Amino acid sequence: MWDRKHLLDIEAFSRTDIENLIALAKRLEPFSGIDKSKKFKPLGLCSGQIMTLWFEPGKENSTRTFGSFPAAMMRLGGNCKVFDEATSSMTKGESLEDTTRILSGHSDVIVDRHHDADHVYTVASASSVPVINAGNGSAQHPTQTLLDIYTMVKKFGRIEGLKVAVVGDLKYGRTVHSLVKGLEKFGVHATGICPQGLEMPGEFRTAGYEERIIDMNDIGRALSELKPDVVYATRIQAERFSGNSGTYDYIIDKAVLSGLPKNAVIMHPLPRISELSREIDADERSIYFHQADNGVPVRMAILCLLLDHEFE
Amino acid sequence: MWDRKHLLDIEAFSRTDIENLIALAKRLEPFSGIDKSKKFKPLGLCSGQIMTLWFEPGKENSTRTFGSFPAAMMRLGGNCKVFDEATSSMTKGESLEDTTRILSGHSDVIVDRHHDADHVYTVASASSVPVINAGNGSAQHPTQTLLDIYTMVKKFGRIEGLKVAVVGDLKYGRTVHSLVKGLEKFGVHATGICPQGLEMPGEFRTAGYEERIIDMNDIGRALSELKPDVVYATRIQAERFSGNSGTYDYIIDKAVLSGLPKNAVIMHPLPRISELSREIDADERSIYFHQADNGVPVRMAILCLLLDHEFE
Amino acid sequence: MWDRKHLLDIEAFSRTDIENLIALAKRLEPFSGIDKSKKFKPLGLCSGQIMTLWFEPGKENSTRTFGSFPAAMMRLGGNCKVFDEATSSMTKGESLEDTTRILSGHSDVIVDRHHDADHVYTVASASSVPVINAGNGSAQHPTQTLLDIYTMVKKFGRIEGLKVAVVGDLKYGRTVHSLVKGLEKFGVHATGICPQGLEMPGEFRTAGYEERIIDMNDIGRALSELKPDVVYATRIQAERFSGNSGTYDYIIDKAVLSGLPKNAVIMHPLPRISELSREIDADERSIYFHQADNGVPVRMAILCLLLDHEFE
Repeated sequence: MWDRKHLLDIEAFSRTDIENLIALAKRLEPFSGIDKSKKFKPLGLCSGQIMTLWFEPGKENSTRTFGSFPAAMMRLGGNCKVFDEATSSMTKGESLEDTTRILSGHSDVIVDRHHDADHVYTVASASSVPVINAGNGSAQHPTQTLLDIYTMVKKFGRIEGLKVAVVGDLKYGRTVHSLVKGLEKFGVHATGICPQGLEMPGEFRTAGYEERIIDMNDIGRALSELKPDVVYATRIQAERFSGNSGTYDYIIDKAVLSGLPKNAVIMHPLPRISELSREIDADERSIYFHQADNGVPVRMAILCLLLDHEFE
Repeated sequence: MWDRKHLLDIEAFSRTDIENLIALAKRLEPFSGIDKSKKFKPLGLCSGQIMTLWFEPGKENSTRTFGSFPAAMMRLGGNCKVFDEATSSMTKGESLEDTTRILSGHSDVIVDRHHDADHVYTVASASSVPVINAGNGSAQHPTQTLLDIYTMVKKFGRIEGLKVAVVGDLKYGRTVHSLVKGLEKFGVHATGICPQGLEMPGEFRTAGYEERIIDMNDIGRALSELKPDVVYATRIQAERFSGNSGTYDYIIDKAVLSGLPKNAVIMHPLPRISELSREIDADERSIYFHQADNGVPVRMAILCLLLDHEFE
Repeated sequence: MWDRKHLLDIEAFSRTDIENLIALAKRLEPFSGIDKSKKFKPLGLCSGQIMTLWFEPGKENSTRTFGSFPAAMMRLGGNCKVFDEATSSMTKGESLEDTTRILSGHSDVIVDRHHDADHVYTVASASSVPVINAGNGSAQHPTQTLLDIYTMVKKFGRIEGLKVAVVGDLKYGRTVHSLVKGLEKFGVHATGICPQGLEMPGEFRTAGYEERIIDMNDIGRALSELKPDVVYATRIQAERFSGNSGTYDYIIDKAVLSGLPKNAVIMHPLPRISELSREIDADERSIYFHQADNGVPVRMAILCLLLDHEFE
């Protein structure tokens, strides 16, 4: 069984760890509320327990992560409270370590999202309760990777042997950084497709990772040549650029989809801006909204793992 | 039984629908906590369920609605979380529709209050869970109307045959827009009393609605002539004016009350500024605070209706 | 038994009241979650009940108090919601009294922290539910005093006969204002040690209180002469000064500790800035983090007291 206290990066998980987590998430999914057609009795596994959400409004805005972590906790019967540095005693000069020490006294788990990639590691070192990395700057987003893999397993029944293309902003897109590392544990080597200037940073390139630098206007041709099972598209992270990011824009539309294998899927961590045309939303290969929904059962499983709740 | 998915406007309710809702609210009231002298066992009807509050801090400030919706959910055993556009991925360019699609994956019900009157309709069209209009700009406030009618029924035992005067800012006051339409379902035609410039907009005027344009200094005389059972006063919505709204001010004080029938009541959606003199607060005809309290049981009933919970 | 509706200041408690509260907190502590090595079944005493947190983000920033009050409520099975004046109808001109009247309709208890020391008294006068003072300007912080006394009793088994030194900013430090009054109920007269200009205000000086004005560089000598059982250090409240507060700085480090009795303890309401050297954190006489943790069981006891829940 996974024996870490904190969930800080995807490297901490073995393939078996991920498989166990996915199996647990599958058992929890009927109690996650993502299938609106089904009623369910609520689980009380985390009854009386407390999640502290340590996000950075303004700097690290969030809809999915900030919404699905509390949803997961609430579906498990637990409680949530929000901590905001800007209205805390950190404004009086309290250190990060002292703040963490105090918050962990009031909590059973801390979910941390910060623009500074080191923040979550400092918090984990000072915390007496489990800390979850919910996105650290442009470094990693490990719980996103776990839900991405969960989504692929739900669709294909396996990860092994899948051909995965990661597309777009591979430099600043933390979700693909974690994903490439996660897939490698299953022997899957992702192929990067990106414009010059947005290549995957060295520290996230795995042994079998390959990359194709293209003019993004040729995304259709590149994908039809590669014939991937999974196209994992990402948003150009404009907020992390100092200059104009417009030259990197691309679009996946019906024309691009027509060149893909019939059973291929389009995934995306969202938000999308214009890189996924609304005209493909109704295509059954577009599973990005289901992917987002899967955040709830996967984060329920993560909470059970870290808080030591069994659910068979 | 009421068969709508969403609660967007008062028009969606028939008279029977309203009567059923009021009966349900009456059964739930002992579990609403508004009578501080009585203890009660909490209801678990919404246990494990999640309300997302989509309000606009800064633009649509709120004390009653923002407080009583979560109170209603909590009294039913459910959970609440707050969504704020300003700290969400909408700041990265995510569309309203995509945002809604995601939030509904994390929720069982969405409560929406927005300065843009169309917002709640767009949210409802994209949501996989029920959406409640908690005030859309200066258009409507249907749950306020339901609690207003509930308050009248508690006081008079009926709506039919009541003489209701709506007073003040009939142009921007969304609560009276919904109320006039709601009352008409019971055959009650409200009489508007307002200064020139703040008349009821055409789209909210029902067939039997009458209006008297007065100098608001004459409010006492106008009311003593009309002899209404219910005086429904409203605040001049200064924040929706571009210029000075001071010339529209009026005041209901002891002198005005002395001209009213003995069993008449003063209602007001609150907040009041100076239009209700504090000197009438202790008068038993001043029921505006009880009216506000009634928001909790009525919103509990609305949640049971939309979330399909029976309570006999 | 304590028979007040509200908890506004420490004067309202007799010695017996405090002893009863401490005994209750001790029984509740195993259900408070502060001992991370122990699992526990959650208490449902406040199931379905609602705490409204009325804090002033920006003006009265808080980590401990804003975190431990909801933690206490959640450990008791209750719910919390946040009220913020800045996004409420007070921005439209609603009065403090009207606002309170409304909030109490949606709540079972209101926790109030405000820079204006009179605010909590006005709120209490208008509220239909219990109001707790969570820090009123530079006046008092009575729940802090209760947890401070709880911490001393846990350490020494008693309050009577303890020699307590309160050190630092005795002028603006509201925690020591309440503490000196609380200790006096047990016949303990605190000794103040502070620089010229930060003396205890007259209204908080009890009959047996003594004060030594020193150059804060001599803090080590002053403490080694006094030989207190408890050193209660406080932060220089820089945010309440108009000018430079730097000349008042002091530091308790290993050298200062070496002059103290072996079984003495260092307490501090936190946050600390530089007045407690990190080099003493590991010393077992440094109990300030345990002290902060004790906020949860003590506030659980306060909630049980005000909400009339028995727990044997």
